[in-house]
Amino acid sequence: MGRTHFLPADRVHYAWNNRLPPALEVESGDTVVFDLREVTDNQITPASTADDLTRLDWSRIYPLGGPVAVKGARPGDTLEVEILDLHPKGWGWTGVIPGFGLLEEEFTRPYLRIWDLSAGDHTTLEENIRIPLEPFCGTMGVAPAEPGEIPVMPPGRFGGNMDIRHLTRGTRLLLPVQVEGALFSCGDCHAAQGDGEVCVTGIEAPMHVALRLWLRQGQSIPEPQFITPGPLTARYDQKGYYATTGIAPDLLEAARKAVRHMIGYLTQTYHLTPEDAYVLCSVAVDLKISEVVDKPNWIVTAYAPLSMFG
Amino acid sequence: MGRTHFLPADRVHYAWNNRLPPALEVESGDTVVFDLREVTDNQITPASTADDLTRLDWSRIYPLGGPVAVKGARPGDTLEVEILDLHPKGWGWTGVIPGFGLLEEEFTRPYLRIWDLSAGDHTTLEENIRIPLEPFCGTMGVAPAEPGEIPVMPPGRFGGNMDIRHLTRGTRLLLPVQVEGALFSCGDCHAAQGDGEVCVTGIEAPMHVALRLWLRQGQSIPEPQFITPGPLTARYDQKGYYATTGIAPDLLEAARKAVRHMIGYLTQTYHLTPEDAYVLCSVAVDLKISEVVDKPNWIVTAYAPLSMFG
Repeated sequence: MGRTHFLPADRVHYAWNNRLPPALEVESGDTVVFDLREVTDNQITPASTADDLTRLDWSRIYPLGGPVAVKGARPGDTLEVEILDLHPKGWGWTGVIPGFGLLEEEFTRPYLRIWDLSAGDHTTLEENIRIPLEPFCGTMGVAPAEPGEIPVMPPGRFGGNMDIRHLTRGTRLLLPVQVEGALFSCGDCHAAQGDGEVCVTGIEAPMHVALRLWLRQGQSIPEPQFITPGPLTARYDQKGYYATTGIAPDLLEAARKAVRHMIGYLTQTYHLTPEDAYVLCSVAVDLKISEVVDKPNWIVTAYAPLSMFG
Repeated sequence: MGRTHFLPADRVHYAWNNRLPPALEVESGDTVVFDLREVTDNQITPASTADDLTRLDWSRIYPLGGPVAVKGARPGDTLEVEILDLHPKGWGWTGVIPGFGLLEEEFTRPYLRIWDLSAGDHTTLEENIRIPLEPFCGTMGVAPAEPGEIPVMPPGRFGGNMDIRHLTRGTRLLLPVQVEGALFSCGDCHAAQGDGEVCVTGIEAPMHVALRLWLRQGQSIPEPQFITPGPLTARYDQKGYYATTGIAPDLLEAARKAVRHMIGYLTQTYHLTPEDAYVLCSVAVDLKISEVVDKPNWIVTAYAPLSMFG
């Protein structure tokens, strides 16, 4: 087995750039332990209020640990990222940020929830609403082929800010290497998130993350792919789901309708505020494409796990 | 407990129309056993070939059992459909039909798979590729409020051709009643289907279906909703998934890319033809919206259960 390297929390960069000098150089099979800040680079703390979301310095959003150069990696190879372990550092936050999110036209005011993650494996929205933690890195990617500084927010074929909730412990992520050395970076850790991340944030949290990097020379993939080790939802699906459909000729509008209907259900049934219902959708409700072939109407369905409700 | 009614296979209609006379009238709490033809009304049989898909009489597509009037139902009420039992009658088919499907521009020729469903709980694509059966009605709906004949293909707020794979045994579907008596109909049964139904057909099969109908007077919902009884994927998720991402500024294009990449993976890894890989995606691969907030690129991910591959 390879060596283990430790990357401290101050080795960060805020944009993709394939000219950045590597923070580390590793061999295929080596492990890297990252100490990762939350996505605002400590601008949000457990003492923050919603107004702090309107004063963010956006040049400091997405501090990424890295880049890590992998010896021998070349464009056309695949980098396999074996996700060994992740653990949040006791707190997190979820915010509604004006101008962002699936329902940005309805939710125009900033809103902030600070989460107590001290139990390690779950948190609570209210006493009787319990959310299991399933931590992952919202952002894992290799340096893009394009020159210059490239913003982190949009994901691309190099991976990056993919926000795929199932990239949890035990999953192996495959990334198409774009430049020599691959130049892997990661950050933007989420302690929990639903498929969709509808309010634009998961449970954003600082974390320790351990990843093993493998080079698959000569194996090429068009966009990121991954292999999960077992059931995706075993920690929260035992009691089934409440599901709301959104039916529309456009998938984005269908997704908006499904989430609006779920917010309606959650506010009526559990007496949540619309903001807390929207936050709960973002951190725990999954969007599935039910059908995309029955012309001209497609269906997106939002699934809320009933095990959350005590 | 209410009465049980039996609706024979010849009591069908081929369009929504709120003026159709009821085939049955039932009380809230009654059960109806439907004997349902497959979606082409017996135009496809176990002896059919792909060419038969080009000669379909489309006026006979979607034979629906019903309509069933529920006494006392009025617009603004909700009809609860308790899904008691479904069982396919030993065979099914999946087809690529020119002019339909998520990848209709790439798959332009008709293709037909006949499935042996005699084992009852699974079928096989090839000797080492096994697909668990999870039967459901692709179409369940109440009569729309709009007058006249309304085609069955597009779903709407009245439900209809929703093709939601998780409407399986034990699930309770809620439909917003549009007209007096509700006028419930169902059909288009699928023995298995992935979230998305990407090639436009699941495993289409004739079935016996038992549903209990409950009237929830004065309870109103905006579009169909449902409650599932437990884990959605327990029969096929034990070995995890191979997943392919599609990243694009449009969700439909992201879905196309994810499915294209999955077809690439399945053809390379399991030596399937592109047509069989597309069919396998339609009957067993799930589309999830991973993120729809990281402007301007959204991600749809296709998940193939690894337990299929022996």
